[in-house]
Amino acid sequence: MKISTHIAHFDEPLYLESGRILSEFDLAYETYGELNTDKSNVIVVCHALTGSHHAAGRYANESKAGWWDALIGDSKGIDTTKFFVICVNILGSSFGSTSPLSIEPSTNKEYRLRFPVLVISDVVKAQMKLFERLGIRQAHAIVGGSLGGMQALCFAIEFPNFAKNVIMLATTYATKPWAIAFNKIAIEGIVRDPEFKNGYYDKDDIAKNGLTGMALGRMAGHISFLSPYSMDDKFGRNYVETDGLYELLGRYEVDRYMEYNGHNFPKRFDPLSYLYITKMMNNFDCTRHYNTLEEAMSLIKAKVLLISFDGDILFPSILMKEMYDAFCNIGRKDQVKYICINSNYGHDAFLVEVDKIDMYIKKALECN
Amino acid sequence: MKISTHIAHFDEPLYLESGRILSEFDLAYETYGELNTDKSNVIVVCHALTGSHHAAGRYANESKAGWWDALIGDSKGIDTTKFFVICVNILGSSFGSTSPLSIEPSTNKEYRLRFPVLVISDVVKAQMKLFERLGIRQAHAIVGGSLGGMQALCFAIEFPNFAKNVIMLATTYATKPWAIAFNKIAIEGIVRDPEFKNGYYDKDDIAKNGLTGMALGRMAGHISFLSPYSMDDKFGRNYVETDGLYELLGRYEVDRYMEYNGHNFPKRFDPLSYLYITKMMNNFDCTRHYNTLEEAMSLIKAKVLLISFDGDILFPSILMKEMYDAFCNIGRKDQVKYICINSNYGHDAFLVEVDKIDMYIKKALECN
Repeated sequence: MKISTHIAHFDEPLYLESGRILSEFDLAYETYGELNTDKSNVIVVCHALTGSHHAAGRYANESKAGWWDALIGDSKGIDTTKFFVICVNILGSSFGSTSPLSIEPSTNKEYRLRFPVLVISDVVKAQMKLFERLGIRQAHAIVGGSLGGMQALCFAIEFPNFAKNVIMLATTYATKPWAIAFNKIAIEGIVRDPEFKNGYYDKDDIAKNGLTGMALGRMAGHISFLSPYSMDDKFGRNYVETDGLYELLGRYEVDRYMEYNGHNFPKRFDPLSYLYITKMMNNFDCTRHYNTLEEAMSLIKAKVLLISFDGDILFPSILMKEMYDAFCNIGRKDQVKYICINSNYGHDAFLVEVDKIDMYIKKALECN
Repeated sequence: MKISTHIAHFDEPLYLESGRILSEFDLAYETYGELNTDKSNVIVVCHALTGSHHAAGRYANESKAGWWDALIGDSKGIDTTKFFVICVNILGSSFGSTSPLSIEPSTNKEYRLRFPVLVISDVVKAQMKLFERLGIRQAHAIVGGSLGGMQALCFAIEFPNFAKNVIMLATTYATKPWAIAFNKIAIEGIVRDPEFKNGYYDKDDIAKNGLTGMALGRMAGHISFLSPYSMDDKFGRNYVETDGLYELLGRYEVDRYMEYNGHNFPKRFDPLSYLYITKMMNNFDCTRHYNTLEEAMSLIKAKVLLISFDGDILFPSILMKEMYDAFCNIGRKDQVKYICINSNYGHDAFLVEVDKIDMYIKKALECN
């Protein structure tokens, strides 16, 4: 599989839904496989909250492959011998695209809290500018899970002629208070942590020492990504061997998992990016300009594949079922397919249970 | 309904499961109704993590009645014209019983982190000493939800001749990693908060200013007490009117609810008590001295009523179903009744959906 990584600079304004403007912006992206001559084999892959454009493959110095490597590659579910896959780091995320830590042209300083609030529509609009520059007028498919699924849905509604197929996994048409509540712990944790210094933290300090409030929020995130069943399988009631059962701060194995994942997270993910992207997720509601979910769905021209996971507690299956029902209610049952996968992995299933979904995706990509 | 509040002092040692000893201890308790002459009309009510012995009734200066006032009272589900109800503040909780903020006799200082780790068995054993002092040899019933249900179960297994009926709601036979993970956010939040001062915080400061890390943990707690459905009903995607949708820290109504409940909590509940009681909950496993759940259940002589709520995400219904199945597996189906209540209220249902359960409880209490 051929991989390449790029950063595209756009020396033109991006008009945002908020009314604010990014006077210039960068987008980091990766591609896998080769673009065919008529540019008809493009698959756009959209990443989730803490993902990046590095969706597949492994570089020489890397211990782990890209986040959807099990799905994307030669002869895999998204077959890079046939398709040219492109994954763009979303605006606001600090893996190379313009983010709160980028330099604001007008002040020559990092934006920090002056960075504008972005919505999914802004992120998608910026990606369209990249595809335009690359001469890609149409995608064979757009695929995304979680926040990536929100992007896929937004593409389908706002650029209905762009993609022929849209595949959404473990996502929702609108972020519900349940998910907003989980995000609140991180937002409140970050903002109230004295080391956050109201957004003017020292990046190196955080990368070295972490950020407790953000770690607590990430722990809550990990609960929402798993399920009671996956936790039972993974940890049971196992106690950390070196800790005493009657020590106040003695830990179960699940405690250690939470500590490890919580405290490491701020060292690899920027707190401001996290605030801006959770805000983006919270604000997502594809029906916001329409009267009903049916009205929003009626704008979609692509074939739609919806995949939910029955153990997903962050975006329960019922939400994707409602999207499916909306298509049915407007007499468009032929346009949509809905599959609910049995899985104990909770929300994380879209990343870890690829063997249960890759055939459905492969098949959907055979449609023309 | 006659209410009275007491504090009983025990000038005798309590030998704890950990091997440590409380050389003396206090238990605060409330009673409702009147004890009959042969002391045969006693109902023991056990409170949950952040509850107190004030289960019912309302004092002159109170804005809210006791936490289970809808259930306990004259002609209510637990009818105080018939029964003498007693609710004991558990050891470790700081509403009058001995807790980490009590004076340690040997040092004449507050225990703080020198307080011993308590398990549910210890808490129940202390309550038995109170009942003994009051001349109560048998209870007509023990009733409890959540951590209170764990106490009820522990009474039933460890003092099988004490209660004729045991009613458990929204609880589990063993705390699973899912619940431990939710508790972890509070534990980590408290311990890492600089204002906690390694357990030597100023009580007045906390009561006035709160404790951010504990507030974050409580927010996670509130997620586990509710459900996606109750949040949809309660908040929808409503945005706080005075906040801007494109302000980074603009809030949804659910955010405001989390802030309010999170930050107020440390002002009314002691952080050290919270650490000790979550530890107590995490360590609960009624099968720990036995090979199987069946073996543990086989020790119970009381009639058992199990009530779960289908939307409970903290202690999912399946856990009580497993208890029911264990009774069936040992040929004791006649001894147990299991009811799963349909409710959108999640774990909180045992407190707020009393009208759905009071008839079951009333009926169970008619058994002799």
